[in-house]
Amino acid sequence: MSGGPEGRIRVTGNPRWIVGVDIGGTNLCVGLVPWEGGEPLALRRLPTLAAGGGEAVVARVVEMIRSSMAEVLGSTGAPPEAVAGVGIGSPGPLDRSSGVVITTPNLGWRNFPLRELVTDRIQLPATLDNDANCATYGEWWLGAGQGVDTLVGMTLGTGIGGGIILDGEIFHGVSDAAAEIGHMTINFGGRRCKCGNYGCLEAYASGPNIAARAVEGIEAGAHSLLSEMVEGDLDALTAAHVSEAALAGDVYAHEVILETAKLLGVGVANIINALNPGAVVIAGGVTRAGDLLFDPIRAEVRRRAFRPAAEACRILAAHLPETAGVIGAAAVFKRVAVGHL
Amino acid sequence: MSGGPEGRIRVTGNPRWIVGVDIGGTNLCVGLVPWEGGEPLALRRLPTLAAGGGEAVVARVVEMIRSSMAEVLGSTGAPPEAVAGVGIGSPGPLDRSSGVVITTPNLGWRNFPLRELVTDRIQLPATLDNDANCATYGEWWLGAGQGVDTLVGMTLGTGIGGGIILDGEIFHGVSDAAAEIGHMTINFGGRRCKCGNYGCLEAYASGPNIAARAVEGIEAGAHSLLSEMVEGDLDALTAAHVSEAALAGDVYAHEVILETAKLLGVGVANIINALNPGAVVIAGGVTRAGDLLFDPIRAEVRRRAFRPAAEACRILAAHLPETAGVIGAAAVFKRVAVGHL
Repeated sequence: MSGGPEGRIRVTGNPRWIVGVDIGGTNLCVGLVPWEGGEPLALRRLPTLAAGGGEAVVARVVEMIRSSMAEVLGSTGAPPEAVAGVGIGSPGPLDRSSGVVITTPNLGWRNFPLRELVTDRIQLPATLDNDANCATYGEWWLGAGQGVDTLVGMTLGTGIGGGIILDGEIFHGVSDAAAEIGHMTINFGGRRCKCGNYGCLEAYASGPNIAARAVEGIEAGAHSLLSEMVEGDLDALTAAHVSEAALAGDVYAHEVILETAKLLGVGVANIINALNPGAVVIAGGVTRAGDLLFDPIRAEVRRRAFRPAAEACRILAAHLPETAGVIGAAAVFKRVAVGHL
Repeated sequence: MSGGPEGRIRVTGNPRWIVGVDIGGTNLCVGLVPWEGGEPLALRRLPTLAAGGGEAVVARVVEMIRSSMAEVLGSTGAPPEAVAGVGIGSPGPLDRSSGVVITTPNLGWRNFPLRELVTDRIQLPATLDNDANCATYGEWWLGAGQGVDTLVGMTLGTGIGGGIILDGEIFHGVSDAAAEIGHMTINFGGRRCKCGNYGCLEAYASGPNIAARAVEGIEAGAHSLLSEMVEGDLDALTAAHVSEAALAGDVYAHEVILETAKLLGVGVANIINALNPGAVVIAGGVTRAGDLLFDPIRAEVRRRAFRPAAEACRILAAHLPETAGVIGAAAVFKRVAVGHL
């Protein structure tokens, strides 16, 4: 079954777990997700170290899968067949049917046969879907988006990923490239984005870009706790530092969060005007800022989105920020294998 | 049946036509659309004259419906029952189930019971849907979008309307407010839009805003045929004049069209990155500029959209610019009444 098209995946017997694999620009995360849903077991998390190349990333993922499976099978005494297969979430664009990652600016892969490389080593059927689709599907299945049929997810990480759930299914578009919400232009002459475009939402509000905007202000003379937090090494500044400093009362960091919220609000308003979803779920390190971030996002959305659409849409923090990607990747496997969750 | 919820509409006997009503910010259009599809018969077109108020608009629409029906029934000898009902397309946001237009910036309506007002006078069942949804559905049924399951339509008129077709059905979102593509922010600190927001696509590329941008340049000293075309009365300048002048070789008008195309390209790229459709169909007066408009739109999309999504999407001029709204409004009626087209 390995390497075959998704449609050929079949699950027999009584599966108890699915391996969920979440490949991010910064971290890899692997765990065993209970077949009927639940927190992943034997979670493993390692840095992606994308600069080492795709083969090295796959080798590490395979080790993580083996280690998770060994722990769970060892402690439960379950047979290997209790693990139905592997759901992989990866940055894209990608081709689900061939399991190939076409290109990913944050990892530097091109036409990378990710699914086949994993199945060849693990000897289990696998599915591949976009990491942000998976995270959104995970939040829809077991997290903040439960019961919301039309849902958009945004993950503010190394990049900004997006996922769209319509009528309880991931919406993929005609070539698996839908929901690239981070690359929505919100300012056509604006900041350069890693994708080559100018003024993308991601160019303002991804983790590294939040940090970069904060650094720009400090270099221009803004006073802030942030400099001390990184002992003057501004290259080490992250969006999480900015959130922490804002929560600790730092005025400048609060300003950066507020500006970030307004920019995210522009993006969320665009999503709401286009798709009129029941909820937008936002995940990522910067969401630690909580209401400092979410209140001004909601205010900006009220200003920018049409009222009937804005009123119909809740803007929520993710409930499963650490594990939605793993859970959702496993959910995709189950959906493909048996047609439902 | 009049005024009842959509779900109650039933068609019996052998319907031959559906009345299609297209209410636009500038013009009203009514015609009888053949049940199995085809060009509308006995087309009537009148200015909307929105300033006269909603009741006056409805009175004119009702007269147009009566006149169209009289012509077709008179010339064919068909009985009144051969007209199954009325499909109405109106600017929104609106509530399909109650048939009420909630608000429409370009017409000044608020909580306006449009469907009931029409059915009370015409005594035929009716449906109400967004005008741009209808135009897109019309292009999907009989126009440029035939055979494209996932399709986005844009109508550049008084405002910029949008419609989204997914798997051959109009996508409405959770409260009938989806596809407000004209109010996508493409420049967060940009031009004020009629909707109250800043930097909407519509604030740059609707008909009146194309004309306004052209006038701004002329007032700032640009030389152009445009001034002569309106005999110095720049208030009379329209986007159609700009297209004509560009086609006639006017350098400044060409510049305005090129700038318009780049702005539209930003919007289309955002749509493509979000929805990965098989086609985007663009309608409206300014599309008379043809390749002068479409070539730079496509170029901007190639620069801004992810390649797998851009490559999967054709960017097409509408085939039914004058009648897609009427055809699509009738198509909505048929879809609601019998569940298919």
